[in-house]
Amino acid sequence: MKNFFIATIILAGALALFSCSENETEKVTEAETDFTRFVNPFVGTSKMGHVYPGATAPFGMVQLSPQTNFVKMFDENGDYNKETYEYCAGYQYRDSTIIGFSHTNLSGTGHSDLGDFLVMPTTGSLVLDPLPVSAGGKGFYSVFSHEKEEASPGFYKVDLDSYNIKAELTATERVGFHQYTFPESDSAHIVLDMVYNIYYHNNKNVWTFIRVENDSLVTGYRQTKGWGRTRKVFFAMKFSKPFESYGHKKYDEIIYNRFYDRFNETENFPEMAGKNLRAYFNFKTKEGEKVKIKFALSPVSAAGALKNLDTEIPHWDFDKTREETRLAWNRELSKIEAETLTNEQKVTFYTALYHACLSPIVYEDADGQYRGLDQNIHTSDGFVNYTVFSLWDTYRALHPLFNIIQPRRNNDMIKSMLAHQAQSVHHMLPVWSHYANENWCMIGYHATSVIADAMVKGVGDFDHKRALDASVQTASVRYFDGLGDYIDFHFVPDDKSHSSVSKTLEYAYNDWCIAQMAGLTGEKEVEKTFLSRSKYYENVYDPAIGFMRPKLADGTFRKDFSPLDTHGQGFIEGNAWNYGLYVPQNIDTMIAMMGGKEQFSRHLDSLFTMQLEDKYIEKNEDITRDGIIGNYVHGNEPGHHIPYLYNWTGKPYKTQERVRMIMDSMYGAGVEGLCGNDDAGQMSAWYVFSALGFYPVTPGSAEYALGSPLVKHATIHLENGKTLEIVARNQTAENKYVKSVSLNGKVIEGNNLQHNDIVNGGTIVFEMAEQP
Amino acid sequence: MKNFFIATIILAGALALFSCSENETEKVTEAETDFTRFVNPFVGTSKMGHVYPGATAPFGMVQLSPQTNFVKMFDENGDYNKETYEYCAGYQYRDSTIIGFSHTNLSGTGHSDLGDFLVMPTTGSLVLDPLPVSAGGKGFYSVFSHEKEEASPGFYKVDLDSYNIKAELTATERVGFHQYTFPESDSAHIVLDMVYNIYYHNNKNVWTFIRVENDSLVTGYRQTKGWGRTRKVFFAMKFSKPFESYGHKKYDEIIYNRFYDRFNETENFPEMAGKNLRAYFNFKTKEGEKVKIKFALSPVSAAGALKNLDTEIPHWDFDKTREETRLAWNRELSKIEAETLTNEQKVTFYTALYHACLSPIVYEDADGQYRGLDQNIHTSDGFVNYTVFSLWDTYRALHPLFNIIQPRRNNDMIKSMLAHQAQSVHHMLPVWSHYANENWCMIGYHATSVIADAMVKGVGDFDHKRALDASVQTASVRYFDGLGDYIDFHFVPDDKSHSSVSKTLEYAYNDWCIAQMAGLTGEKEVEKTFLSRSKYYENVYDPAIGFMRPKLADGTFRKDFSPLDTHGQGFIEGNAWNYGLYVPQNIDTMIAMMGGKEQFSRHLDSLFTMQLEDKYIEKNEDITRDGIIGNYVHGNEPGHHIPYLYNWTGKPYKTQERVRMIMDSMYGAGVEGLCGNDDAGQMSAWYVFSALGFYPVTPGSAEYALGSPLVKHATIHLENGKTLEIVARNQTAENKYVKSVSLNGKVIEGNNLQHNDIVNGGTIVFEMAEQP
Repeated sequence: MKNFFIATIILAGALALFSCSENETEKVTEAETDFTRFVNPFVGTSKMGHVYPGATAPFGMVQLSPQTNFVKMFDENGDYNKETYEYCAGYQYRDSTIIGFSHTNLSGTGHSDLGDFLVMPTTGSLVLDPLPVSAGGKGFYSVFSHEKEEASPGFYKVDLDSYNIKAELTATERVGFHQYTFPESDSAHIVLDMVYNIYYHNNKNVWTFIRVENDSLVTGYRQTKGWGRTRKVFFAMKFSKPFESYGHKKYDEIIYNRFYDRFNETENFPEMAGKNLRAYFNFKTKEGEKVKIKFALSPVSAAGALKNLDTEIPHWDFDKTREETRLAWNRELSKIEAETLTNEQKVTFYTALYHACLSPIVYEDADGQYRGLDQNIHTSDGFVNYTVFSLWDTYRALHPLFNIIQPRRNNDMIKSMLAHQAQSVHHMLPVWSHYANENWCMIGYHATSVIADAMVKGVGDFDHKRALDASVQTASVRYFDGLGDYIDFHFVPDDKSHSSVSKTLEYAYNDWCIAQMAGLTGEKEVEKTFLSRSKYYENVYDPAIGFMRPKLADGTFRKDFSPLDTHGQGFIEGNAWNYGLYVPQNIDTMIAMMGGKEQFSRHLDSLFTMQLEDKYIEKNEDITRDGIIGNYVHGNEPGHHIPYLYNWTGKPYKTQERVRMIMDSMYGAGVEGLCGNDDAGQMSAWYVFSALGFYPVTPGSAEYALGSPLVKHATIHLENGKTLEIVARNQTAENKYVKSVSLNGKVIEGNNLQHNDIVNGGTIVFEMAEQP
Repeated sequence: MKNFFIATIILAGALALFSCSENETEKVTEAETDFTRFVNPFVGTSKMGHVYPGATAPFGMVQLSPQTNFVKMFDENGDYNKETYEYCAGYQYRDSTIIGFSHTNLSGTGHSDLGDFLVMPTTGSLVLDPLPVSAGGKGFYSVFSHEKEEASPGFYKVDLDSYNIKAELTATERVGFHQYTFPESDSAHIVLDMVYNIYYHNNKNVWTFIRVENDSLVTGYRQTKGWGRTRKVFFAMKFSKPFESYGHKKYDEIIYNRFYDRFNETENFPEMAGKNLRAYFNFKTKEGEKVKIKFALSPVSAAGALKNLDTEIPHWDFDKTREETRLAWNRELSKIEAETLTNEQKVTFYTALYHACLSPIVYEDADGQYRGLDQNIHTSDGFVNYTVFSLWDTYRALHPLFNIIQPRRNNDMIKSMLAHQAQSVHHMLPVWSHYANENWCMIGYHATSVIADAMVKGVGDFDHKRALDASVQTASVRYFDGLGDYIDFHFVPDDKSHSSVSKTLEYAYNDWCIAQMAGLTGEKEVEKTFLSRSKYYENVYDPAIGFMRPKLADGTFRKDFSPLDTHGQGFIEGNAWNYGLYVPQNIDTMIAMMGGKEQFSRHLDSLFTMQLEDKYIEKNEDITRDGIIGNYVHGNEPGHHIPYLYNWTGKPYKTQERVRMIMDSMYGAGVEGLCGNDDAGQMSAWYVFSALGFYPVTPGSAEYALGSPLVKHATIHLENGKTLEIVARNQTAENKYVKSVSLNGKVIEGNNLQHNDIVNGGTIVFEMAEQP
């Protein structure tokens, strides 16, 4: 993979600071070091990373980011336009035009949504459509170049060359802050496009509503039926300077109320409503004049958004907010001080850490009110409410990472999940929590993994009994995605449900997680039940062929079956070769079942070295060549534990080889630095863990599998005040093998690290070597 | 007009009670007299009365009423279907089928909307469309007959003959209570139709949302874009008996989220959402088994609706709620104890009083929370929030009537209007307040009249200064409906605005109202400004032809002009002959301007006796032959003061003649007992006043014009504890002339009564005579 470096990120000076010895590093304090300089928000903005380069605060509700020349979800023939998948976060690095700046963007998800409240500054004749709608027509988009573009945590800037406008963006948790430097113009405009969605198609809007409260304050909301089908976002938008006039265009077919006929609704009429509308605000500007906008969001109401706005940014000092958000980012990033061999690795590492702190996002107003899954307004009591839980992805490494560097937030996230469950009419924990909606994306009930992992690691003060109850209720919803059949048949029958093997494997793992919770809370019967269910993976293993294989309701294995194909073979986004190794709760048993350590080790070797033919993966958006090593798919989640499985075959050196290879080839500091969707931080969390030398192969246990660290040195500042040092002695690019690992001077036997080894602080020393 | 009597209203026994002398009447106390027996909710349910016969509490948020075989707003050719106008309240007496029972209905309005949450019990094969959608197909409607139908205040019942189901309905302020007596059936259903709107057309729905919380509780909401274009109503629906299964059908074109594919969303999946859907709940019933439903509404949230439900009806005793609501109605109705010459007059009178207590409706949850015009949630502080202010209609007599019999509510209504103004992005008092929306229906800013009338009469404790400010702000919104031109030109130029004369006349009157407020609060400059504006009516009078006449911006009168035509002649729903007499604030001046008392009196004589050709009124929905006397249109509002204008011409006997004639011919106790839209109670309030012998010709003054009472005797129980007796001595059908009027034994000079004469209590005696 190419890792070309973005010209706009000038790191040389900063990196010089860090070319220091271990002893010197120890003396560096948070105040002295600006880790935000090592973050390149453009990493992964090319192709399938699905991340955005815009401005956001850590875990912030606002993600204010440029939207580049978009494509329509369906082409003119009504066919699905595959290109749209690249635009999950609204931005593609290869593009040359920007249509505006939206306030919500998902980071790295495998499905597109959001893009709320596209704001675009323009000059000249007013144009209200982003793209030309007729031959010879104009769109309000602007050309731009990466030379005039810059991004760092909490800050984004670009020159909108078509208008000679400099755009700068920053954000607090709930407020986006725009600063537009205009040329002299007697017809400058700020367009507020309420039609635009990611993907762009009109049908996503349910309703939009705008009130021009006075000559510099606008409020409103939008309801969309995208991924979250009853999703509402409210806003308040304050201008630093009164607009001279304003108006809107409505793109709806019907007139709602004939009594509006008597007004010229389109100009200077302060109340706008409809399914699809675009508003504009007109200014006169002097050369170099800055027009600023504070744009707050709320899940509750426009009044809530306005309160958020006034609470978080009670001034017009753009640089002050930018600096405060930089400091907020530095607080998060400085939790791990990492020394790497190269500048590029450092950028890759801190960008991964940055990506791992983008979501889940805070989902409540400054006063603690939030919209629940039941669409009622709730107040968070004793926690901060979060949403955007892409759990099929993030339970693997992101939430385990939070248990080390963000335990307080992870506790809040678990409480948010429990609130979701309490509000769920299904009585289910979130599968994919999406702005007071459940979007049901992917499979399993992996909130149970997040909860079990926190419970077993002693993280948080959430109610364990309540968490177990919520998990058991979740695991008992018979109409959920083959779950009733799973309970009845002890596997998901392939003739009753698609992705039957994947579901069986993940349910079994989730059930093991529930059993762990039950064990910890002394619920013996529940533990027994779910331990029993956790072994159902055995029922989809076909010893005759040595693969997990779809089984039918009659107990026979499906006849036509291709273990290499990722399409319709009982797996979702994977095949029997890779997804079939998913038994994190019973790895030794799985290996024995699959023929023992040697055979399993050979399977892994083949997996990493075989040539997978295109036909097996084509038409699969989440599996692309960029993210594949042999038949191992790092660009997608189900195999993320696989490189570490060599540890269980007596060949840990192969794990060490593979994880270093993956870190080198699948990640980078450039725009193509992500080999697949970052998936709300999971891909990045994998990197952060692996770079530190260990990985949570089995969330829900307190164990980590040892790998091969990439860092030379790292200091993890824990919330409990303790510090963990990780030292890789003799670390070089070639010395990727680990001769020994010692904890506080005592050599660690085996290939595992315990959670307590980390949170009790101390020093872990990896002795690196060139040979296994 | 025919006044045929409904068989289902059996009054004979009740009326016997009231065939008593004055002295006996005085002894009757509230507890002893059931005035609800004199109310016939079917009055006006035929043709254009636009009232509903269903169950509601006084001023209640729930109006639970049958919807009869509906028509589509547009016919198959896409043309507007005129018949739909008859269905403003969802019911037409001539119909023979019922499609279900909706929880919101407007009473008597001149535009249709609402019809939320149509509930229909059925048996047999499940049918989800109300009407057959294909040849040979079935709809879920039922035939019914009036023989098996019954209605009284707070109660409605009907046999659904197609299913052998007896339906009974009652309601509290916020909760509808259904009681369905089923036959034996193993496939009984309750259909919850979220598609149905009044008028019926799919496009009115914006979004619907349903949660099946458990086997007997359903919650949700609907947003519509009908008359109120951003209108949301939330509900909670509790069944007395768990349903066995449930499901829904969605009528939407697009799938919102492909992840729903894995579920069978249509059956027993507890979360339903989409633009158009119909849900159903299945039961097994025994012969004669009652299935009851409590269905609560909320403007705030489903949680609010559920709280309303549990607060207002914490039991399943249908008869108890029915009786409590009957008592609530009796408390309102017994505020006026009226003796009439005939049984029919008594029913007409109490039904009018009933219709006058249907709206405005309470628009807040039991805990005081409500949705404001800004779509934010507010809490009423020191008042009860109301909506449905059809002010162009109701300022005339309904709110003045409230100032006598409902001063506390009217004070709350004014505070609701002030809250509306505070939340209005236009900074305007309501024109037509419609469920947290402004629907802008009709002209003027008549909230100022309601406020001035209360202020001058000393009603309520609202902030007078604040009310004046709100009124002045309202009267200053230049983009409102020609108002800027009115301010600039001192009339509304006809070449700039339709209905220019009507607007000029009403603005001038409204401005006079504001001047009264200013006078009372000592704001001399404001008083002067608005007194000056109140004379602008003079600018649209053309002395050359003796009529109010459209004037152009250049100051000349419009050339082509027909004083008789109601179409496009500068008047809305009227012509120069009738609407042109609208100067209630300066009647003497107007009469002088129009040639003096004699000439004006002759104009009135002509007005009542001329033959208006059909061509002048055809295509005007609000002016029908049923409501016309000559060229006087009682079926619509702008002329309601006209019969009383004879008082100012020295010919009060002609007022007496006319008002008795109008009461006799334009009102009745049967289904055709309303000669036009009741207009949210205005038509009925006219009757109540006139029947008592006086009328508020100029709201905003403390004066009432004396007419000719219809009652023999009436006792008004005032909220201040005082009592006003009205005695019509020698009252007969023939003795319609008033020889003299005395107040507490002292003869009243002139033709006016003062508000204090009423609220200080005492006795007014009309000496009736056969000759003028």
